Parts: sequence; C-alpha cells; structure tokens
Amino acid sequence: MKGGKTLGIIGVGLMGGSLALRAKKFNLFQHIIGVEKNQAHTRQALEKGIVDETLSFPEALEKSDVILVALPVSATAEILPQILDQIQPHQFVFDLASTKEHIVNSVKNHIARQNYVATHPMWGTENSGPLAATEESFENKVLVICDAEDSREEWVKQTQDLYQKLGMKVIFMDSKSHDLHVAYISHISHVTSYALANTVLEKEKEERIFQLASSGFSSTVRLAKSHADMWLPIFKHNRENVLDVLEEHITQLQKFQTALIMERYNEIENYILNANKIRKILDKKI
Amino acid sequence: MKGGKTLGIIGVGLMGGSLALRAKKFNLFQHIIGVEKNQAHTRQALEKGIVDETLSFPEALEKSDVILVALPVSATAEILPQILDQIQPHQFVFDLASTKEHIVNSVKNHIARQNYVATHPMWGTENSGPLAATEESFENKVLVICDAEDSREEWVKQTQDLYQKLGMKVIFMDSKSHDLHVAYISHISHVTSYALANTVLEKEKEERIFQLASSGFSSTVRLAKSHADMWLPIFKHNRENVLDVLEEHITQLQKFQTALIMERYNEIENYILNANKIRKILDKKI
Repeated sequence: MKGGKTLGIIGVGLMGGSLALRAKKFNLFQHIIGVEKNQAHTRQALEKGIVDETLSFPEALEKSDVILVALPVSATAEILPQILDQIQPHQFVFDLASTKEHIVNSVKNHIARQNYVATHPMWGTENSGPLAATEESFENKVLVICDAEDSREEWVKQTQDLYQKLGMKVIFMDSKSHDLHVAYISHISHVTSYALANTVLEKEKEERIFQLASSGFSSTVRLAKSHADMWLPIFKHNRENVLDVLEEHITQLQKFQTALIMERYNEIENYILNANKIRKILDKKI
Repeated sequence: MKGGKTLGIIGVGLMGGSLALRAKKFNLFQHIIGVEKNQAHTRQALEKGIVDETLSFPEALEKSDVILVALPVSATAEILPQILDQIQPHQFVFDLASTKEHIVNSVKNHIARQNYVATHPMWGTENSGPLAATEESFENKVLVICDAEDSREEWVKQTQDLYQKLGMKVIFMDSKSHDLHVAYISHISHVTSYALANTVLEKEKEERIFQLASSGFSSTVRLAKSHADMWLPIFKHNRENVLDVLEEHITQLQKFQTALIMERYNEIENYILNANKIRKILDKKI
C-alpha cells in the first residue's frame, strides 16, 4: 500500500472501524472516508476519529482509491456488483465478509471481477458498532485471501501488503474450502452458543441463579450475545456446511446422552479424553 | 474463624491450593497441613508454599481444627464418612465438591453430621493441580452453603466467616436445588463444550485450520479442556439433572436445525434474538 491514498469504507461498524483505526495508527492512508446509513454510528465514527469524513455512497466511490466493504454477508453480496459496475481501472475493492463462496459467485462473471479481492479476517467479538472498534483488534490475527487467482495480481499484492502492515498473518485459500472450514471452527460454535443460551433460558426460571454462573458458563455462552444482523445471513449463505457440521454435533451430544442414560461411564470417560485433545491443538502456534 | 488454628486440606490441587494461598494471604490460620496422594503435587504444593507441611491422612486429621476436603465429588463422598467417624467435637469439616445431594445423603444419618458443612465455591477453570492454584481465584466469587440446618450453627458461622474473609459472597441453598441449578449453569456447558470439541475434531482433519480459529471458538471450546477426573464423577452424581437439561439442549439444536433445513429464516432470527437475552441477564450484578 503506497501512502497518499484514500480509503473508502462502506459500513463503519466494529470491523470497518477497527481496520480504520489501525490503518490510522500506522498512517497507511492519507484520507479515510466512511459511508454509513446508521446515523448514530455515523456520529460515533466521526467523534471517535475513525473516519475523516462521511459521504454518500456514490461520492465515496468516486473519491476513493481503495474501497473496503465492511458489511454483513448479505449486504456485501448485494453491494459488491454495484461497486464493480462503477469501479475505475485504478481502483480496487475488498471485503471482510465471513462467508466467501456466495459472494465471489455473485461477481464471478463481472467484467471488473479482477478489481475485487475477497478477504476474511479471522476475528470477531460478540459486540458491534463503531464504539466497539479498537485499533488492536486486527493485531496478530490471521487473514484469509480467497480465490486470489481471480483478482489482479497488483491488487492482491496491495491487499496483502495492507494486512501485513496492520500486523496480520495472511494465508490463501479457495472460497469453497474457506466456507467449509469456517463452518467447523466458527459457525458451529455460534450455533451451539445460541442453543445453550436458549436451553438455559428455557430451564432456569430463577434469574438470580445466573449470578452464580462462573466464568466457564459465561465463556461458553459468550457468542450467544452476537447480533442476528450479522449471523442470520452467515447461516443462510453457509447453510449446507453448517447443516453438515450441526448434524455431527447433534450426533455427538446424543452419544453422550445415550452413554449417560445407560450409565456407560467408560464411554463418557473416553468421550472426555478425546475432547481434551483440543487443548494441545489450540495451543499450537502457526 | 479465629486465628491460631490449624487447617488440614485433603487434596492439594487447584481448589484446595487456591483456598490455602488466599487463607495465607489474610493470615487466617496459624498452620496449614496438606494431605496429597500425588507425589508431584505434594512437592509442588510445598515448593509453592501452599501448605506448611504434608502429613498422612490420620496424622492430619488428628492435628487439624478445621478439615477441608478438596477432592472430586466421588472421592469426597467416599472420604467424608471416614472423617466423620473420627472427628472430635471441637473439629469440623467442609468440602468444595460441585454436586451436593449425593454427598450430604452419604452422611445424612451419621452421628457427627453436624460437624460437616457442605459448600461449593462457584468458580473453576479448565486447569488443575497446585501449579494452577492462585491466591486470587476465590476473590469476589459466590459461595453456596447447602443444607445449613443440618450443620451445627457454630460451624456454619465459622465457615461463612472464613469465606467472607476470603472475599466471597455467601448464599444458602438446599442441596437438591443446588444440584438442579448447577446442572443448568455449569454442567450443561461442560457437556456442550466436550461435544463441540469432539464434533470439530471429527470433522476438521486439517490440523492447521485450528490456527485460524478466533477467540470465539477458543472461548466456546475452552471447557472441553477440563479433566475427566473431575467431570466424570459430576455427571455420574448429577445424572438425572444433567440428562434433563441435555434433553432440552438437543431439542433446541434440533429446532435450529429444522428451521435451517426448511429455510425458515424468521424462526432463526427469533431464535437468535431470544438467545441474545442472555447478555442482559449475565450483565446484572448480584
């Protein structure tokens, strides 16, 4: 990424806001423009110094060298073809959406497809909006660039360079594999967390009891705080992969259930010992 | 708790060790004795200054004013009647086990029942052993005393006093209710976390992919690192309550599954919105 350029961010929330703050910290752009429909978010983004100005979508598109789409997946799939319709040869656009196959397919045959780079930063929190944005959020995280061969080499290079300057580790993957793997290591844990919250809300009618919950419960149920605006489209876009891993998860729970009903404690012990393997795997570094 | 007394801790692991460290910080006992079968743990506990000396079980029992059983639930239920068989009128014993009904039932008709106070500190981690013990672990946590009416008033008072000096909020509950509620706010989240780990280990065969996992996944799967030694007996002792809440949990997951199969996205949205309520409930303070 050369200095002196203008970044236009469509959607100044947690993700777009955090990227802007970190880009400002390292002075990676001369000017950052925000496009944001939510008026409270617009005000917050300006007050927090996340963007230098906010403009309408067409104005921002015209003035930006690099365009970042930082919207939920459905909105990303909707706006991306519109951006490519108007994009100039000296501009490129990248996105942050959590599923990729549907999005890259939506512009597969677009004449300006090469001006789009599909990316997914592997972090998130249960919070949202520009107030939740921080300049550290992108630090030391993994960034996936999908289907790089469908983008112009120069734009891939600039995108990779930008993310590396933000302090991320960049890896490459095809969008189909990406969606499968994120179903396993991200989407299913959101489903289980939502389901756990609903389970406990259904069973535990004494509200004061929740105050007894230790950090273990809070940790497991944390993702259940995540917004429907973001997650409903993800489940929709990645439906088949999510259904596939969810089927396995229900089978796993039924396996535990049957063993406990039948009091087959050796089986439960092996079940736990197998699950414990996750410690070693998670502790490994890239 | 008056000063000048001796505390004997049966089982110097994460829980017993953390209680000892905090009691030392506030000088609540003149002398702390450890009883520990595991030789590595014995050495670590002495080196870390958790206990002043380690003795055999009979020696410790004789020398202690207050006896703490800090063992997994099965071992607690086994050793508690033996302790009460030998306990002197000036001594009392309390435990930390995570299920209570089975344990209080095991000494229900014991002649020295009144010298036992059933307690459960509402915290834990996925780690274990004296090396994981810290002097802050008991701070600002909730402590449940169960079936207090079955213990001598003086011993309940001293136990409550001890925990309050450790910085805990003490609440009272009958053991049957306790076991029901901990199934909801603690045991089920361990089952779901073990099941999630096994699901992902089953589906994701590329180990490097785990390195893409964000903190959301780690958070949800954290409890799957918890030891079988501790958790198998808990599931055994609290089998009926765990089965009851597990049944609800599987039903909740199937509800999500059916909605996604049928592409009833309104239903999934409501499912997520309902789960989101957990945020407000968890954020409330006691």
